[in-house]
Amino acid sequence: MRYSPLLTDLYELTMMAGYLEEGMASETAVFDLYFRTNPFEGGYAVFAGLEPALSCLEALRFNAEEIDYLRGLNMFKPRFIEYLKEFRFRGRITAPPEGTVVFASEPLLTVEGTLAETQLVETVLLNIINFQTLAATKAARVCHAAAGGEVIEFGLRRAQGPDGGLSASRAACIGGCSSTSNVQAGMDYNLPIKGTHAHSWVQSFPDELSAFMAYADVFPDSTVLLVDTYNVLKSGVPNAITVARRLRAQGHELRGIRLDSGDLAYLSREARRMLDGAGFPDVRIVASNELDEYVIDSIRDEGGRVDIYGVGTKLATCAGPGGVALGGVYKLAQVGETPKLKVTNDIAKATLPGRKQVLRATGHDGGFLQDIICLAGEIPRAGDVVYHPVNPLQHTEIPSGAVLQDLRRMVMENGCRILEPEDLTTMSRRCRSQLALLPQGCLRFINPHRYKVSISEPLNDLRCSMIRATGERAKADD
Amino acid sequence: MRYSPLLTDLYELTMMAGYLEEGMASETAVFDLYFRTNPFEGGYAVFAGLEPALSCLEALRFNAEEIDYLRGLNMFKPRFIEYLKEFRFRGRITAPPEGTVVFASEPLLTVEGTLAETQLVETVLLNIINFQTLAATKAARVCHAAAGGEVIEFGLRRAQGPDGGLSASRAACIGGCSSTSNVQAGMDYNLPIKGTHAHSWVQSFPDELSAFMAYADVFPDSTVLLVDTYNVLKSGVPNAITVARRLRAQGHELRGIRLDSGDLAYLSREARRMLDGAGFPDVRIVASNELDEYVIDSIRDEGGRVDIYGVGTKLATCAGPGGVALGGVYKLAQVGETPKLKVTNDIAKATLPGRKQVLRATGHDGGFLQDIICLAGEIPRAGDVVYHPVNPLQHTEIPSGAVLQDLRRMVMENGCRILEPEDLTTMSRRCRSQLALLPQGCLRFINPHRYKVSISEPLNDLRCSMIRATGERAKADD
Repeated sequence: MRYSPLLTDLYELTMMAGYLEEGMASETAVFDLYFRTNPFEGGYAVFAGLEPALSCLEALRFNAEEIDYLRGLNMFKPRFIEYLKEFRFRGRITAPPEGTVVFASEPLLTVEGTLAETQLVETVLLNIINFQTLAATKAARVCHAAAGGEVIEFGLRRAQGPDGGLSASRAACIGGCSSTSNVQAGMDYNLPIKGTHAHSWVQSFPDELSAFMAYADVFPDSTVLLVDTYNVLKSGVPNAITVARRLRAQGHELRGIRLDSGDLAYLSREARRMLDGAGFPDVRIVASNELDEYVIDSIRDEGGRVDIYGVGTKLATCAGPGGVALGGVYKLAQVGETPKLKVTNDIAKATLPGRKQVLRATGHDGGFLQDIICLAGEIPRAGDVVYHPVNPLQHTEIPSGAVLQDLRRMVMENGCRILEPEDLTTMSRRCRSQLALLPQGCLRFINPHRYKVSISEPLNDLRCSMIRATGERAKADD
Repeated sequence: MRYSPLLTDLYELTMMAGYLEEGMASETAVFDLYFRTNPFEGGYAVFAGLEPALSCLEALRFNAEEIDYLRGLNMFKPRFIEYLKEFRFRGRITAPPEGTVVFASEPLLTVEGTLAETQLVETVLLNIINFQTLAATKAARVCHAAAGGEVIEFGLRRAQGPDGGLSASRAACIGGCSSTSNVQAGMDYNLPIKGTHAHSWVQSFPDELSAFMAYADVFPDSTVLLVDTYNVLKSGVPNAITVARRLRAQGHELRGIRLDSGDLAYLSREARRMLDGAGFPDVRIVASNELDEYVIDSIRDEGGRVDIYGVGTKLATCAGPGGVALGGVYKLAQVGETPKLKVTNDIAKATLPGRKQVLRATGHDGGFLQDIICLAGEIPRAGDVVYHPVNPLQHTEIPSGAVLQDLRRMVMENGCRILEPEDLTTMSRRCRSQLALLPQGCLRFINPHRYKVSISEPLNDLRCSMIRATGERAKADD
């Protein structure tokens, strides 16, 4: 898809115009994109949205219609309009690969380039990365709850617009979903697609059994029957068993049944018993209906026998505690060679100045120990003192024996991608293997273990000295 | 934008293939799109999304790439693939105009056509109507809280994907927002756009005052200064006043200041006092930072002096009680001349069979009294007994003197729009005037008055007799 450069907040354009007017448009700048709190009151996030973001930046152009529109606003000087006609994003992007497990405070994308170009792309980068990271994280949580059960993303009809649906399907598969019901996402992102039939199919026939028979005739090798149109245990499952017998007699096997209402733990146990009793232990049970990680957890707690979870609304809209948006922000860290800081009365909102790198410390078994944010060019070592990113009085050490690795890499230079795009399978494999290396308490839904993210001593010193330097202005006005 | 016909759940296609195979594809069908509960635990919803939905249906075609993709799935027979190549939506749509105040249980869209075409469009219609109706409703709530204060939609960066942002901007303006920060929405939907500058602008300069001066130089007639980068009352507002004086000396006026953190009620009162004291009573105060209807309510309760509210995340993502999705459903009401019903153990989920109309009863002053869902062709009158849509034991009468009017009209016939598209201003005016005609308790955020929606006696009789007829199957299996 084409992203219009007008897919931006107006103030990015007014600031660009201002920078041009002030002769500052070509100064170099460094922005960091990060979030301040892990989503869903959880212990981690799964980074996603990089490929679409890079595609967007590579192709960013103002077309004639867009130029005319901006000119017609009578808000900008002709020189700025001319400048936009030639505009290309020619900056550098540093980022983790998609599917990487990340945490609050860590710069995800670092965007370097001219002040004008780095400012313009703020809104669109936040739009893409915020939502896809949120949806991938939600999917990882849902898949964790499913504990090896398959999860299908079903959310298109409740998603926030067409692209809300497409992005959600893509991100959900990075986070661990096996497939989606969204056919366009299947085509665009090469994802497995799944689907069965709706209640309307059953209603269109004189009775449930003839509806089931007809469906099985058309799709003898991929039939999953929705069994709750009338009565699951008295009508739906017995009729499904009748169809399963007929299919078997014809050399096929019924693939599954789907439960879409009622007590899913109870109904799945009973349906399992009936299917097993009739000689169909391989017919799989799919469950859907307002599922999320908490509902799946409770179905499993109560001995539910669900094999496949269809998760829609709550996944596509990223519903959950802590709100439905990743509060990603995009903050200026440096102009030219001068580190920049946003001071506020609230230290939790103070930014981290300067060009930075993000390192992950791992133990001898590969397990993740802590992440360290430091200045570019620093070489932190085991034993170094590091600081809490928000509370400068709290410090710790990099554990001895820890191996430190860059979490990120340069992915775009001079506005061009410098790595081949990855496929979603690679990303989702990365996500799964990284989640296994996290302290397992981080995966808990309630009061998860807080994975340690620290800042290096030089970065802490730089920030503290900058806060002191702006001291007069920063004093509270209560 | 082009909507791909693949923007659908796979099961719509498998069911279409099934109907074709069974010789049922051309039977006529009637589907209703409605929601079961008012969003946000509120008293109403604002219908939106119709124009995009109609554009989508009018242009729905499978292109060569999409046909190849479907063929490559090896899931469908060649005859079905050929059928899709020629596919056009040729059905009829009945709907209220956008901006209409609507309620749970009422058919919003009624879609009539062949079983195949009406089934295919389920997902995309739900996707478009669910989200835009939800966002328009959220905007109406936020604007109600603002009580005449202006509301600007700011949510693009936290929206659920690019189109999540565009649809949200459109719907927000139907629901009452005056403008958006989203430039593409401004161009695509002819909406007023607004914007100022970010903290990064201030940080890019040696100090706040020079940043303010520079911005005012570039936009002398539209400057709104963000005053919270360092300290609102000790630095931001005094510097803004300095700039306001300089602008006035040059024959211009500062337009406003923006507060983006801290205690917005307190800071806006103090800023107002300082601006008034300095002779700038017309400089407007804009507030932003995680606003929603509840926060705006409390700012006003505490005597806040905010003139303009910038509402972003919570509006674009439709955060709020009752979840972040409108639970819109799309249910089969009739095949050929046979009314259809989905029975379940839960009467709240039983559908309303047959072709129906929705009437609104208004009093002598135009105030809305109640809505009545009845069968097509019925002519209900004041004094008629009508029934609760979920509890058949509860009934009431259509009030004497009530005037009954159709809430909906035919908007598409044979797949072609039959009315000129409306502009968003007409829709937002309709929304505002209808909200004024509602019982005012319906606008309350907590425990709102429940506006009465009833079903006519013939519709109630039809449903009850159909439930009885499927009685054996419908009995609980507990």
